[in-house]
Amino acid sequence: MVRDVRICFVGDSLVAGLGDRQCLGWAGRLAARAAGAGYPVTYYNLGVRRATSTDIAERWEGECRRRLPADIDGRVVLSFGIDDTLLDDGRTWVPTERSVANLTAVLRGTRGLGWPTLMVAPPPVNDDEHNSRIEKLDAEFAEVCGAEGVSYVRVHQPLRQSTTWMREVASEDDYHPGTAGYEEFAALIVPPWLLWLSEPGSGLPVVR
Amino acid sequence: MVRDVRICFVGDSLVAGLGDRQCLGWAGRLAARAAGAGYPVTYYNLGVRRATSTDIAERWEGECRRRLPADIDGRVVLSFGIDDTLLDDGRTWVPTERSVANLTAVLRGTRGLGWPTLMVAPPPVNDDEHNSRIEKLDAEFAEVCGAEGVSYVRVHQPLRQSTTWMREVASEDDYHPGTAGYEEFAALIVPPWLLWLSEPGSGLPVVR
Repeated sequence: MVRDVRICFVGDSLVAGLGDRQCLGWAGRLAARAAGAGYPVTYYNLGVRRATSTDIAERWEGECRRRLPADIDGRVVLSFGIDDTLLDDGRTWVPTERSVANLTAVLRGTRGLGWPTLMVAPPPVNDDEHNSRIEKLDAEFAEVCGAEGVSYVRVHQPLRQSTTWMREVASEDDYHPGTAGYEEFAALIVPPWLLWLSEPGSGLPVVR
Repeated sequence: MVRDVRICFVGDSLVAGLGDRQCLGWAGRLAARAAGAGYPVTYYNLGVRRATSTDIAERWEGECRRRLPADIDGRVVLSFGIDDTLLDDGRTWVPTERSVANLTAVLRGTRGLGWPTLMVAPPPVNDDEHNSRIEKLDAEFAEVCGAEGVSYVRVHQPLRQSTTWMREVASEDDYHPGTAGYEEFAALIVPPWLLWLSEPGSGLPVVR
């Protein structure tokens, strides 16, 4: 008997896979990989362009509730942070303490609803200063996830070392890669992803 | 200058691509095809399992508003009807007049918001009686779309003649095909799809 696993990927344009001509992004590739590994899942992509953690904290529950009824194995994968750290007149779109509060609220919300949750770090962009801000937020997010007992997949640092990722982001629009970049992103997450799919409670709080 | 086209595919589990191990479904294939044809679009899949026209009439606006800001070329592709015509104690989940009212309301809503809209017919399932009910609803939907000046892509009849579609649906769960079935579904829609992408107002009200 195969379990009825349904997963909402909630996040920003990177979650939506913007720029991938195959229209899968990293989330779609993870879902396809799950099917290939014998864990078919219902794949709901709720990535939205320019979504900050504040936007996500506001919409995640309504959109997930409509997709994850009570009698199935409902799960949530989160990823955001790049838009939080965009600058407008020298200030980030979302102050760090607010990003942290938003993530904490979402994680407590998903736990309250009984949905195992996985958080994926915000990847690097083609701007060193922006990446420094993202990396600081990444450290905060890792801490929140650790405190809440949620697996956090650190993709920011390895992707910054990835020639494919950095080259594609630079040649596209400075924020999104093309197909090869998304493939590399997904490949990084596959091991913790398959572990989390088979045993959602088993992961270390922070997966490197 | 490439236009910033963002498209919400709103509908049921067939829109979500359930059963496709490649996790694209027909909607993802259309989006990928658009990119290949030189019309890259932002692809938002809002298909939800067991979604009737009543569910969709309730949620489409909130979910689309969050994804289609005012300053871009926002569009909506709709497809539903199989769940409306499921039977419970001899009665359909949604009465025909209610399905018609729901579709009418959504089409007037998208027009009011300035989002060109395309409606795709509900495909056949592996149950002749259910298909008869779907086909009646299909005729009603075609009429509504004609009256509202919206293109309606009739995929039900050709898919019923498709050995691939009917075989896959029968061998999966009686409702959803696998990858090859979704490919065939998408292939049927490609011509009106590309026409609608390039000139949303140009299609005949009902596309055969």
